[in-house]
Amino acid sequence: MTRTGLWLIGARGSVATTAISGLLALRAGLAPPTGCVTFRPEFADVALPGWEDFVVGGHDVVSTPLAKTAEHLAQAGVLPPHLLGLIASGLCEIDAEIRDGYHPVTHQGDQAEAARRIAADITAFRDRHNLARVVVVNVASTEPPAPFDPSHGELTALEAVLTEPGRAVLPPSSLAAYAALRAGCPFVDFTPSTGIALPALDQLARELGLPYAGRDGKTGETLLRTVLAPMFTARALRVRSWAGTNLLGGGDGATLRDPQHAESKLESKARGLAALLDHDVVAPLHIDNVPDLGEQKTAWDHVSFEGFLGARMTLQFTWTGLDSSLAAPLVLDLARLVAAAHADGQAGPLGSLAVFFKDPLGSDEHRFAEQTRELYRWAGELRG
Amino acid sequence: MTRTGLWLIGARGSVATTAISGLLALRAGLAPPTGCVTFRPEFADVALPGWEDFVVGGHDVVSTPLAKTAEHLAQAGVLPPHLLGLIASGLCEIDAEIRDGYHPVTHQGDQAEAARRIAADITAFRDRHNLARVVVVNVASTEPPAPFDPSHGELTALEAVLTEPGRAVLPPSSLAAYAALRAGCPFVDFTPSTGIALPALDQLARELGLPYAGRDGKTGETLLRTVLAPMFTARALRVRSWAGTNLLGGGDGATLRDPQHAESKLESKARGLAALLDHDVVAPLHIDNVPDLGEQKTAWDHVSFEGFLGARMTLQFTWTGLDSSLAAPLVLDLARLVAAAHADGQAGPLGSLAVFFKDPLGSDEHRFAEQTRELYRWAGELRG
Amino acid sequence: MTRTGLWLIGARGSVATTAISGLLALRAGLAPPTGCVTFRPEFADVALPGWEDFVVGGHDVVSTPLAKTAEHLAQAGVLPPHLLGLIASGLCEIDAEIRDGYHPVTHQGDQAEAARRIAADITAFRDRHNLARVVVVNVASTEPPAPFDPSHGELTALEAVLTEPGRAVLPPSSLAAYAALRAGCPFVDFTPSTGIALPALDQLARELGLPYAGRDGKTGETLLRTVLAPMFTARALRVRSWAGTNLLGGGDGATLRDPQHAESKLESKARGLAALLDHDVVAPLHIDNVPDLGEQKTAWDHVSFEGFLGARMTLQFTWTGLDSSLAAPLVLDLARLVAAAHADGQAGPLGSLAVFFKDPLGSDEHRFAEQTRELYRWAGELRG
Amino acid sequence: MTRTGLWLIGARGSVATTAISGLLALRAGLAPPTGCVTFRPEFADVALPGWEDFVVGGHDVVSTPLAKTAEHLAQAGVLPPHLLGLIASGLCEIDAEIRDGYHPVTHQGDQAEAARRIAADITAFRDRHNLARVVVVNVASTEPPAPFDPSHGELTALEAVLTEPGRAVLPPSSLAAYAALRAGCPFVDFTPSTGIALPALDQLARELGLPYAGRDGKTGETLLRTVLAPMFTARALRVRSWAGTNLLGGGDGATLRDPQHAESKLESKARGLAALLDHDVVAPLHIDNVPDLGEQKTAWDHVSFEGFLGARMTLQFTWTGLDSSLAAPLVLDLARLVAAAHADGQAGPLGSLAVFFKDPLGSDEHRFAEQTRELYRWAGELRG
Repeated sequence: MTRTGLWLIGARGSVATTAISGLLALRAGLAPPTGCVTFRPEFADVALPGWEDFVVGGHDVVSTPLAKTAEHLAQAGVLPPHLLGLIASGLCEIDAEIRDGYHPVTHQGDQAEAARRIAADITAFRDRHNLARVVVVNVASTEPPAPFDPSHGELTALEAVLTEPGRAVLPPSSLAAYAALRAGCPFVDFTPSTGIALPALDQLARELGLPYAGRDGKTGETLLRTVLAPMFTARALRVRSWAGTNLLGGGDGATLRDPQHAESKLESKARGLAALLDHDVVAPLHIDNVPDLGEQKTAWDHVSFEGFLGARMTLQFTWTGLDSSLAAPLVLDLARLVAAAHADGQAGPLGSLAVFFKDPLGSDEHRFAEQTRELYRWAGELRG
Repeated sequence: MTRTGLWLIGARGSVATTAISGLLALRAGLAPPTGCVTFRPEFADVALPGWEDFVVGGHDVVSTPLAKTAEHLAQAGVLPPHLLGLIASGLCEIDAEIRDGYHPVTHQGDQAEAARRIAADITAFRDRHNLARVVVVNVASTEPPAPFDPSHGELTALEAVLTEPGRAVLPPSSLAAYAALRAGCPFVDFTPSTGIALPALDQLARELGLPYAGRDGKTGETLLRTVLAPMFTARALRVRSWAGTNLLGGGDGATLRDPQHAESKLESKARGLAALLDHDVVAPLHIDNVPDLGEQKTAWDHVSFEGFLGARMTLQFTWTGLDSSLAAPLVLDLARLVAAAHADGQAGPLGSLAVFFKDPLGSDEHRFAEQTRELYRWAGELRG
Repeated sequence: MTRTGLWLIGARGSVATTAISGLLALRAGLAPPTGCVTFRPEFADVALPGWEDFVVGGHDVVSTPLAKTAEHLAQAGVLPPHLLGLIASGLCEIDAEIRDGYHPVTHQGDQAEAARRIAADITAFRDRHNLARVVVVNVASTEPPAPFDPSHGELTALEAVLTEPGRAVLPPSSLAAYAALRAGCPFVDFTPSTGIALPALDQLARELGLPYAGRDGKTGETLLRTVLAPMFTARALRVRSWAGTNLLGGGDGATLRDPQHAESKLESKARGLAALLDHDVVAPLHIDNVPDLGEQKTAWDHVSFEGFLGARMTLQFTWTGLDSSLAAPLVLDLARLVAAAHADGQAGPLGSLAVFFKDPLGSDEHRFAEQTRELYRWAGELRG
Repeated sequence: MTRTGLWLIGARGSVATTAISGLLALRAGLAPPTGCVTFRPEFADVALPGWEDFVVGGHDVVSTPLAKTAEHLAQAGVLPPHLLGLIASGLCEIDAEIRDGYHPVTHQGDQAEAARRIAADITAFRDRHNLARVVVVNVASTEPPAPFDPSHGELTALEAVLTEPGRAVLPPSSLAAYAALRAGCPFVDFTPSTGIALPALDQLARELGLPYAGRDGKTGETLLRTVLAPMFTARALRVRSWAGTNLLGGGDGATLRDPQHAESKLESKARGLAALLDHDVVAPLHIDNVPDLGEQKTAWDHVSFEGFLGARMTLQFTWTGLDSSLAAPLVLDLARLVAAAHADGQAGPLGSLAVFFKDPLGSDEHRFAEQTRELYRWAGELRG
């Protein structure tokens, strides 16, 4: 396939650094593509960009070199320590492709101007590397839920407000999505932040004929819930309550300590569970910041259910995952798939990619097995 | 639908008593059909026998009245205590339809004779109640794996050996299957015992145009494994080991304490896991008899897996189920579905019912979601 | 021993009803004293009241008959169903000894008057049954933390405020403690409510020569924490974080849903953990109301700790307890022990009973094993 | 204190290498003494050898350099990777002090001769380094249970048999203990192997005035059991069953895969549990070899217990430990404590050190808290 750009919003974070390190390792044949869905046999003949086709750049508001973050990730068990030396020069090269991100507090001027600057960074990257296309993926820290504004509902209204000095009508994730579209790029929302999920931005994507996908990568507790809940439904067992606790350290843990940030993540999770079971259940859910766990995320779920003649039973699970390790290969998968959708001329939300997300855009399907089947079907069409 | 018989091998055991009590409760409108798959919307217009269409009988080698077992099950949390009084007369009536089961030690005469007697009991039941058909379901205690005999491979050879005095070439479960077929009845193997899973019996079922289904009801740990393992596969995560421990009391616990009995159950479980993952995994598995747990079965599984760049992660679950509560509604579902298959003229193994079994006959599919989809497809054909 | 009264504040609640039902069962020889610490060999020759010595009464703001609550507790697995018939008349008799409790909203008049009425109920009970003493035990629902008032610090000031019309300077639990002392009775705080834990009430108890004990019965997660935390300390392992989630239904679950109520319970738990480990740890803790769990309380704790050369390890536990079943025998133990302390002439907080409480009054010791040893030592002195 | 030798049987294994690496790190001030019990305040003024007082040597049947094992342990999370370079020369020096171990298959000549050779190695080490004493600690792989021989019961008989050519009446662990004593050294059994636990060897230790301690370091599941079981007893709760599963990789996992080896470990565990509870319980226990877990050991325990009026409750725990990280600091503690006991002139089994062992020699006490208290008392006497 032709050369493809991967532009990461939050390019210096844990997920981005893991994805970048992995891309370098995979390209050099230093690791198998474990965790990369698009290397399953179902994608065998689908025209997807290969590892060697990718060029990586991005935005970030911090300036820590990738090599330093990679070192931290090696200590945390996310990257194998011996890899660091082998990818050091590759990380350096990509460091040079990362531009200053948009920050609502430090930014001077109106948001239209900020969007133009972001879009220009991406366009310059595409031109500089002579890329057929650039897929923009948001992997920045989770934002608090954005306050509603009427201009979010319609593009003309939105663009009018963007030029008002001193107003920040769009949260950073949505500004990034707007800029990406204006630069002619498909967009992926890998976080629960608002991002592209506004009617005005959907309108813009359709008008420009650009595909997008989102939102909130399904990498842990929710992954299990969308696998397990359909079992209860298919077996006609009545779930009475589904309680969950998430312990997480790392950047995400600290961000979500702020109750407002956590809210957007919790809301997204609750929507999924409600959609999976035929009825409402008591479903208390907590996210706790436990810094000593580092990159590790531990989730405990307790499901109480009722069977034949009212018999009471329970299921508990404990998931101990490394979030960046689970997210990074999906980011690479999404870059490949969304690039292919763009090459194929698809536009609007890619509901067929629902399996990647907690809160899928363009799809009401939350059941993992059904989502997987739809992904394979869609890939088959691309192939054919 | 026309009147249908349900003939239970092991009619006085926990699973049978729960199924019978539930049938009486459902028929009287005393409980919702929780746990009954065939009451899902996907079966809305399928011609299945209703609760009022069923007449129940069976064989057993013990003579404890159903009401006494029901009392024990109420103490164990399987049956609601208030139900006992309401179904007492119904249980009494069914008691009268239970005949002495075949026991290899006490039986005098050759096995052909035993089979004729068993078949005659079933035929008389069908005639006495003027039933359109009788579905025979084996829910008796798990047998040890049956020693191989060349006659198992071909019907004529088998029937010759059956007439040899003093030989017991078939284990009781297979003798029951043989007799059921000879009585013109479809057969369901709900246990891991050999039952109908012999080439000679498959041959007989096909010759007589009778459908059958089996084997080993999927009600606990294996249910979860066939739900969870496909998730790892679909996400390209590499399972490194999958260890399991099962604690069970009740009759099953005592039976499986005998290592020979346990073997057949463990083999069946291992086959399933190997089929679900693309590669071999270390998968130690234990069944422990813990009498104080009564009807409760507790399973702990520990899954160690590898993700992107070799990152190490784990999943643990603890399942606390009441085995009879999980099995009984499936027994009723199978009676309904196999009756419909028989009415439809289907013969041989019903691979479309694989979702009900740990070790499905007539199917290589172990993934729960795919099995569920196949069941719905098959039901749709029946409807159509 | 001479006849002893047990006066329960919250006499119609789950804990009280279980304690009362158990007392009747034990007295009739219908059950062994499982869960009663004072039947351990260490108490063999200590002069404690026997089951036959006790007469029970109490206060409550609700009027549900004990038999009805007992029925509910039987359904929930707390009481054996066959017991209900055998203790029905005993429950009726005790019903007749339960008086209307104090409720700050419906009470007319000042709190001094309310206290006089409560004390009079207790005194009348003592006289009516010719009791040597009455132990008053608070097992009412948990209150929100009481706002501080300067009068709490000194008895004369407090008694002055109590006579002010329209002021409710004491929360109900503290009013009960005050009234109990004024009636000449020892007092036990089995809940985390303020109760007797005010300097003015401590002063009163000492002046009147009355012993008291509290507070917050140690029956679940905290019990385990005070058993496990000393292990980490003794082994010089460094606990990094200790996260906990509690799922509970029943009355307590509903009460604690109110964040203000929960706060007092969480504070009490946090104090204990901090006291057990030599250093501060991250210790997020949640209480969730999950009504379908009924009387059952499920706690999950995740402990992350560091060993030799910084090695990272974890301990998780899941405790599934019936809170009333765990609390009730301790209430009976406390009635016996505090009666003995009163007979022995002890006054003030009984720190030697710390093992019974999450937040022990009169003791800084939180380690379960050390508390147990102190209890035995104290009992030995009583014996001697 | 004067210079002290630590002589490790199995000096190149995981536990020994971790202990050695740790000793080097602690001596250099590179790590705090986390996990070392003897750095608790209770030992503040006890005359124990310091890290700088120790010289290390040992026996092993393999010849892998310590640095290579240390590298493997760093990958497994037991040693911090950055430590390897800092202790490399120290490991090399100790490599030079490790002699070929006794192996029953390759050894030529009678066992008396073998013992003389082993003792001579230790004596030479003591002389070479001018040591006040050498503590010999067995940390070699677990042996299968040794077959009983009448000569084990009495020293003269044993020594006669030792000289018979071609007979191996002592398993290697016991031969090591015999040789250590004959070299005038105190001995510690850190494994479940027979070691010094033979009457003839006890006799020898007493005759020579040498102290010894054992056996089987208490580092995981059993540690928790001896902490938790006393809680149930103290609360008069009746444990009904206590099931356990251990998953382990590493050398130990492979050794214990052999059912005969496992037997000795399981027997030692069962003895402990029986001693802790007042009555017999159903207690199935498994050890599974799961190589991918590496040095990690995961134990799941399920405790079913009965409370007041027969209420049924459960406790589950999952322990995820690094066995070498837990064992190594205790090996160093034991070297310090047993050296002090020797200096103090104590002889025979040191029952006061029971807290370190699953199957304590010289003590019937299994309760962790009571064992801890006894250790502190004994240390106080040494101090005094």
